[in-house]
Amino acid sequence: MLKLIPNNRSNPDNFPTLRHTALFKALPTNIRASLAASCTRLTILKNETLMVQNDPADWFYFILSGWVKVYRETQEGDEAVIELLGAGSFVGEYAFLEGDIHSSDAAAAEKLSVLRMPCSVLKQAVNTSHSAALAMLQSYAEKRQRQTRELESLKLQDAPQRIGCFILRQCQGKPSGSRHVKLPYGKSLIATELGMKGETFSRALGKLKNTTHVGVNGGKVHIPDIGELAEFVCAGCSNEYPCKDLVELANRRA
Amino acid sequence: MLKLIPNNRSNPDNFPTLRHTALFKALPTNIRASLAASCTRLTILKNETLMVQNDPADWFYFILSGWVKVYRETQEGDEAVIELLGAGSFVGEYAFLEGDIHSSDAAAAEKLSVLRMPCSVLKQAVNTSHSAALAMLQSYAEKRQRQTRELESLKLQDAPQRIGCFILRQCQGKPSGSRHVKLPYGKSLIATELGMKGETFSRALGKLKNTTHVGVNGGKVHIPDIGELAEFVCAGCSNEYPCKDLVELANRRA
Repeated sequence: MLKLIPNNRSNPDNFPTLRHTALFKALPTNIRASLAASCTRLTILKNETLMVQNDPADWFYFILSGWVKVYRETQEGDEAVIELLGAGSFVGEYAFLEGDIHSSDAAAAEKLSVLRMPCSVLKQAVNTSHSAALAMLQSYAEKRQRQTRELESLKLQDAPQRIGCFILRQCQGKPSGSRHVKLPYGKSLIATELGMKGETFSRALGKLKNTTHVGVNGGKVHIPDIGELAEFVCAGCSNEYPCKDLVELANRRA
Repeated sequence: MLKLIPNNRSNPDNFPTLRHTALFKALPTNIRASLAASCTRLTILKNETLMVQNDPADWFYFILSGWVKVYRETQEGDEAVIELLGAGSFVGEYAFLEGDIHSSDAAAAEKLSVLRMPCSVLKQAVNTSHSAALAMLQSYAEKRQRQTRELESLKLQDAPQRIGCFILRQCQGKPSGSRHVKLPYGKSLIATELGMKGETFSRALGKLKNTTHVGVNGGKVHIPDIGELAEFVCAGCSNEYPCKDLVELANRRA
């Protein structure tokens, strides 16, 4: 299923973005050694598959660069994007706790560089090390909060508000004033991630521009007034911008 | 915030539904003793509040009977039901891993009997006991799978399919033939749980009846052909009925 370009045995310790994750820092020394012996750096081309829903889960991945689309597909070929994961994220790391199978498909939304590691090593880590189990719990806690926010958004916000929320969150917590941002990936991918068909997305984007004066030109977005955009978006949400997770992320980076 | 009818100090060991949960079974003996000393059985009236979003989390709950509505509310009073939790479920048990605050509101959808326990004791259990941390991980894994299924449904299924899916899942995995089922709670609550306004729900229910010959009379539902309903519902889903979690639940009960 996977077409590989180079295929280099790699030591995870050589990759600072992996080494600094809470999950990796919590791993016992012997597990780190196992990972170093079984970790492979891969380049994966756009649209190539990393995981297939309901397949046995042998590998999980750490993204060094590029975007991974995690999705589910009906027999008719309709696709629900569950999430887009970027550099610094794990993919498929929960499978060993969820029946040892992948619960979704995953594919490269663009050319990827990833580290591939065996699920069995992570399973061993969590089952033998309390600190690894606690790190895994923190990961689940963050995932649950993200998913709950998205469920709320799908149930309460209309289409222009959901697009506005996506754009607003690119401002990374900046509270007011104007801002230029770049969309992280293409508009058609954003539309499916937000659960919209192409024509719904276009109409809703038009309404968002008219209401909040946001300008979108290809992948470039100009927000003339973050406060005005937040007022429009957060009217359909139980929280207010800047969202708590953005503030925490900014604090961690500071 | 909470109006209590009786207020009895209770030993969790006296409640088999709690005693048999994976989380409770994993607790070390000293933690069980702490819980026995701090657990209170409460009766909570319909619409009374158990948790307020963003409030410090002092207590979590175990539901003995009744339904709890977990929801979020915008400043304008619009409500997104995140989930309905029934007898045998915990409420607010994740808060100590999510910044020690409640991430949603929760209220009694009907008169409730619950056991109230301190979050601090659960926090101590998970931080000191590897087996408690692993039990908590299993709980998160099941929650993530439920939330992922709901995200998929909101993005892929139309309104009649979502209502049909809700009804189909009441058949508890029975694969074919006809079946009479009772809705677990009122239609207006089902509508908000599915993310629909009342009028959308009514129109979609009409379409579902026409297409699949399902009959709904008050809280009673007659499904003349489970296979026909499943064919209609699962066309918008990556999985097929009976869903994996229903099969696992039936196996656990067998």
